[in-house]
Amino acid sequence: MSIYIDPAVAASLRGYEMPEKLGFGTVMAPVMFRAVCQDGCWSRGELIPYAPLSLDPAAKVLHYAQSCFEGMKAYRTRDGGISLFRPERNAARMAHSAERLCMPPVPESLFMDGVRTVTAYCANLVPANSGESLYLRPFLMGTQADLAVSASTSYEFYVIASPSEAYHSGNMRLWVEREDSRAAIGGTGDAKVGGNYAASLLSIARLKQRGYDQSLWLNAGNRQSVDELSGMNFFAVIDAELHTPALNGSILEGITRESLIELARDLGYQVRECAIDIDELLRRVADGSCEEAFACGTAAIISPISVLGDGGENYQLASAPGPVAERLRQALLDIQEGRTEDRFGWMQPVEVISLD
Amino acid sequence: MSIYIDPAVAASLRGYEMPEKLGFGTVMAPVMFRAVCQDGCWSRGELIPYAPLSLDPAAKVLHYAQSCFEGMKAYRTRDGGISLFRPERNAARMAHSAERLCMPPVPESLFMDGVRTVTAYCANLVPANSGESLYLRPFLMGTQADLAVSASTSYEFYVIASPSEAYHSGNMRLWVEREDSRAAIGGTGDAKVGGNYAASLLSIARLKQRGYDQSLWLNAGNRQSVDELSGMNFFAVIDAELHTPALNGSILEGITRESLIELARDLGYQVRECAIDIDELLRRVADGSCEEAFACGTAAIISPISVLGDGGENYQLASAPGPVAERLRQALLDIQEGRTEDRFGWMQPVEVISLD
Repeated sequence: MSIYIDPAVAASLRGYEMPEKLGFGTVMAPVMFRAVCQDGCWSRGELIPYAPLSLDPAAKVLHYAQSCFEGMKAYRTRDGGISLFRPERNAARMAHSAERLCMPPVPESLFMDGVRTVTAYCANLVPANSGESLYLRPFLMGTQADLAVSASTSYEFYVIASPSEAYHSGNMRLWVEREDSRAAIGGTGDAKVGGNYAASLLSIARLKQRGYDQSLWLNAGNRQSVDELSGMNFFAVIDAELHTPALNGSILEGITRESLIELARDLGYQVRECAIDIDELLRRVADGSCEEAFACGTAAIISPISVLGDGGENYQLASAPGPVAERLRQALLDIQEGRTEDRFGWMQPVEVISLD
Repeated sequence: MSIYIDPAVAASLRGYEMPEKLGFGTVMAPVMFRAVCQDGCWSRGELIPYAPLSLDPAAKVLHYAQSCFEGMKAYRTRDGGISLFRPERNAARMAHSAERLCMPPVPESLFMDGVRTVTAYCANLVPANSGESLYLRPFLMGTQADLAVSASTSYEFYVIASPSEAYHSGNMRLWVEREDSRAAIGGTGDAKVGGNYAASLLSIARLKQRGYDQSLWLNAGNRQSVDELSGMNFFAVIDAELHTPALNGSILEGITRESLIELARDLGYQVRECAIDIDELLRRVADGSCEEAFACGTAAIISPISVLGDGGENYQLASAPGPVAERLRQALLDIQEGRTEDRFGWMQPVEVISLD
């Protein structure tokens, strides 16, 4: 790696003590990667101490939500090394998200430099317990100070990192959201941008009061087919086949989703990417032909679903965690944590940098 | 006003020189108002020098777009005083926007304290030319450093200000946007939140390349009726009657829209709040029964529309600016700038504070 290391960076890393209790996304690594883009020209990136950002009060990101992000993980593998999981897929998706909001895509080489540099210097912060990892959060935002509704002329790209447990644990109780929408047809649902998440917060707050964990979002166009959860894709096992909503423009193309489809087929499961009608799904749960369902995402890996709540009814899944979810989760983690051969070529080892 | 004035604030104001060329939202006043909210408890607000904000890189606003804003204006009136236009309507709308994104509403008294304080101290920055004003931008954002998708526990509220010309001038060429959507049914379209604007940037960039100025957004549910522009409401004069889309949950409830409806009725116009079918509208423009159309908003006041572009066709409005738009614009500005009696009770004078 050819970037200059500030003495302050070395001091931040040397002085860092990792807390015992990690949670998800609350413990932050002491360094971050930063690059800026002015009028389409990207600076070289640099590793700097984690510190508050300085933003003009009129910065576009604060008013017009011109920002996008990624979520990815560095894993400690069985041989003691550190690997990233399919980082080039995150780079590609972030470029897509950026373009949807008129932002200059972060060049793949700069994106990779960012995630690899942070990972290389934070190797000691990658937890060793299975299911734990160093969660990486690249993000891009428009920083121009100008209140006109137009794309920014200046941008900042950061990679921050957080040693984390898996995002959800235990079985999730989902609420079928029939009122609010996460994203419009022709909107930003297939881009990883803040507005999708902002729109979901009220639904989540409402359902938590009713004893549920997450919203199950329906398609905003037909209000009938399942799209996704907030930040996670949906799978159901129906008559021993895996069903997941087909990408339709308002679903985020999850990298865990894509990987699980490939992995499941490799393990001999039939996988259907198709429209999943919510009422049909609930009937299937009620009559037992849908025995298990789960959500997946980078942060959560696989989270089993125990209940689908709709109106006054609770539809109980027969099995949570179910055998298919368990098997897929273990197979994926075995690859990510280096216990089985990486036969899909998904893992990218990172050369660790030691300060000593 | 009972707030403490820092010597740095006085110095910022005394040292400020207003540029001759204002534009819209680019020249910023040298002071701003700030209040914070932690776990539901609001601090007292304070006037401070305009300066970069310090935000944790993991702040919710940067990742999940948990923020909302308002746009409003302070006008210099004919008698030399300074007045705000219906500020309590902005306070109410911002409370609605905040609730849609699970944020604590800014108390009306704090909101009013913010806009009145900034205006009172920036009285010298309120331009005197008709159509110019001090544009005020209150905004609220979630600042908690935590990557979980959930509402922030901490918030900051600011009021920044910009001496400005009217947002648009000249006649606008609109593009009927049939692909992208601004906001979903059940989404955040009736709240003034960043995600709506972020979603609109790509459409605006595309149409500018084709020689248009703004997108005309259709309803994301039916793809057939007119919703609004980005940040402006739509009016058409059809058979000598004013038509504007009825509030349907995905249209922002514009304060200029609401005021123009009241003003137009007072001036003897028939005003219909109804669904406006885009194809019917284009037919009416083509056959001449729709002679004029215009957009309205706080920033733009009234902007005449000269062309509606759809696919390969341009539908030319017979009259732009048309007589109805001209008359309404003048009648509204006459009230805002104190040339006629404020018979609706819309203007709130602000007591100017002099540093001398």
